[in-house]
Amino acid sequence: MRHSSRAEVDPFIVMDVMEAARAAEEAGRHIIHMEVGQPGSGAPRAARERLVAEMEAGPLGYTVALGRPDLREAIAALYGEWYDLDLDPARVVITAGASGAFLLAFSALFDAGDKVALGEPCYPSYRQILRALSLVPVGLQTDLASRYQPLPRQMSGDLAGLIVASPANPTGTMLDKTAMGALAGSCAERGISLISDEIYHGLQYNGRAISALELTDEVYVVNSFSKYFSMTGWRLGWMVVPPDHVRLIERLAQNMFICPPHAAQVAALGALSPEGRAELDGHRAVYAANRALMLEGLAAAGFDRVAPADGAFYVYADVSEITTDSQAFCAEILEQAGVAVTPGLDFDPVRGERTVRFSYARATADIEEGLARLKGFMSTRAAAE
Amino acid sequence: MRHSSRAEVDPFIVMDVMEAARAAEEAGRHIIHMEVGQPGSGAPRAARERLVAEMEAGPLGYTVALGRPDLREAIAALYGEWYDLDLDPARVVITAGASGAFLLAFSALFDAGDKVALGEPCYPSYRQILRALSLVPVGLQTDLASRYQPLPRQMSGDLAGLIVASPANPTGTMLDKTAMGALAGSCAERGISLISDEIYHGLQYNGRAISALELTDEVYVVNSFSKYFSMTGWRLGWMVVPPDHVRLIERLAQNMFICPPHAAQVAALGALSPEGRAELDGHRAVYAANRALMLEGLAAAGFDRVAPADGAFYVYADVSEITTDSQAFCAEILEQAGVAVTPGLDFDPVRGERTVRFSYARATADIEEGLARLKGFMSTRAAAE
Repeated sequence: MRHSSRAEVDPFIVMDVMEAARAAEEAGRHIIHMEVGQPGSGAPRAARERLVAEMEAGPLGYTVALGRPDLREAIAALYGEWYDLDLDPARVVITAGASGAFLLAFSALFDAGDKVALGEPCYPSYRQILRALSLVPVGLQTDLASRYQPLPRQMSGDLAGLIVASPANPTGTMLDKTAMGALAGSCAERGISLISDEIYHGLQYNGRAISALELTDEVYVVNSFSKYFSMTGWRLGWMVVPPDHVRLIERLAQNMFICPPHAAQVAALGALSPEGRAELDGHRAVYAANRALMLEGLAAAGFDRVAPADGAFYVYADVSEITTDSQAFCAEILEQAGVAVTPGLDFDPVRGERTVRFSYARATADIEEGLARLKGFMSTRAAAE
Repeated sequence: MRHSSRAEVDPFIVMDVMEAARAAEEAGRHIIHMEVGQPGSGAPRAARERLVAEMEAGPLGYTVALGRPDLREAIAALYGEWYDLDLDPARVVITAGASGAFLLAFSALFDAGDKVALGEPCYPSYRQILRALSLVPVGLQTDLASRYQPLPRQMSGDLAGLIVASPANPTGTMLDKTAMGALAGSCAERGISLISDEIYHGLQYNGRAISALELTDEVYVVNSFSKYFSMTGWRLGWMVVPPDHVRLIERLAQNMFICPPHAAQVAALGALSPEGRAELDGHRAVYAANRALMLEGLAAAGFDRVAPADGAFYVYADVSEITTDSQAFCAEILEQAGVAVTPGLDFDPVRGERTVRFSYARATADIEEGLARLKGFMSTRAAAE
């Protein structure tokens, strides 16, 4: 059976790392996981309890395509708490993860052949989802001077869209209000549709993250229950769309998804309760402690050229003084130090051979052990040279 | 903000019926629901119990993109039980509902502009998902002589794909082995990719449903936990793909979905247990009783030109001797008889103004009451003419 050309997406290199780590564990080794982008914690207790209760109360049938009204209201209220915004719940669209939100947003905004820009390094699936929808990803090279975020002067009239992420994956860097405003203004001027990926909001350590909604209503904002809310496997996210796009998205969602997973919607309501939020804020405190350890420990090990780790749970390091083959270097770290780390190639096909991403989403004891191993590995390596 | 042209999908007319039914209920009326395509029952008790147990045991994080290996194995075993096929679990791909399976299949098989055929009447979202992916749906008119299923002589070389469904929605008709084999052969000859929607398998009343996999491995088979398994809101489905397409689908799924909803995967394992299956077979017995009542009761009410109701939980009636405006006719039935019924326009934009679909997925007492109301309505209507 033949396949389409748009199905030819790149493999994830991090999958090879994960597979190698799994094989090492199966062979009896103890591995510290700094490669994965998911919390070690699960859904809050309040989320699970809510689901147990509602499962007993009646069938979890289809919800309406845009999601349960009570959940849409609870999310709208979050925009009051986090950004002091008065958001109409009618603009909140519950989705099958941020992944589902991107599928809906890209289908709603772009036609086959349209060019969509993204700052590199970035979340690799942006590019692959765009390709699978017959769209053309345009990588904009970013650097430390702009906190690895795209700049208005990189916008051009032949772009149909721009995806920004703040805090970003893999760097953790954030756009401040001025920078976000300048990008939104530049997009509006040129008729470029702006998509703001705010999936790491709630996890920031240098002041609060700015939502693109604070600057404009002419934006698709994407968020998820996978990061701050610690519910990765539940596959639930949301979008906020311009008021005149709600009906359009509703029809697309009815056909492409029918509805977001109902059990996850119920659990999300529990996660948003005061008890749920208190548990989640406890996780954030762990990440904050991990981050402080990471910045100090990585520098001590020799990884001192890092992006400003404003938010999320990553440190992105320039290792160009150590290697020009990040994939081989990460394999070496796994083999010799027993620490799984992600090479930068997934995030930046151009310069990722000289970068690595460290995740600090796991327990603090693991972070301490991982840092000690990395320090030992690097000093042995230096001695050998 | 501008939107894409591919986002301009048709509205669901059934949504208007559902909204009118909801408004009538809010106003205090008692409505019998024969419009919705979902079981009145929820997930089996064994499914819910399994989820409660696994939620307590640890976090439900991301699974691998193709789904949990134990679930893929359990589904492969079902092909032994249902069709006497020895299916390699590696070919089973767990998806975010049948909807997620279609998104993956269409992306994997077709490029922008490709023509994909479907027999009309059919599930309306085929057309809309194809359009959202910049593909061109080609409706093939079918009739009673071929049980409303497409025929090999309707295939042509400019088609990239064909979607068949057996048992079908809205008709309930099935393809027998000869008819399915002829279609598969015709597709193979012309290089047309065959997608077989088998979402209603497990719900058949005239002999067993044939899987396209009994005739060829060169096919994408789509199925779901929403119908026989009674787990609509959980959004879980699966595909069986040719062996040489597994890696391709895996990469697409990693990027487009990350993984299917983990909680739903756990619940599905419970549904597949002997206890779960026993409960589900009980639902099927209810549908079988409902179906017998429907065929007799609808004929008594004057709806005697119906498609062979081989499977699923629908009766599709030709009402051309009663009306040429099925939408107005359904509104009249709702208003005067308090029975919600779906006009055929969603399924067949060409001839659907002269057809209606009755669903018998709810409790038998509701079916009895609905049939009595329909009989009364039709005799009053006839007397008024």
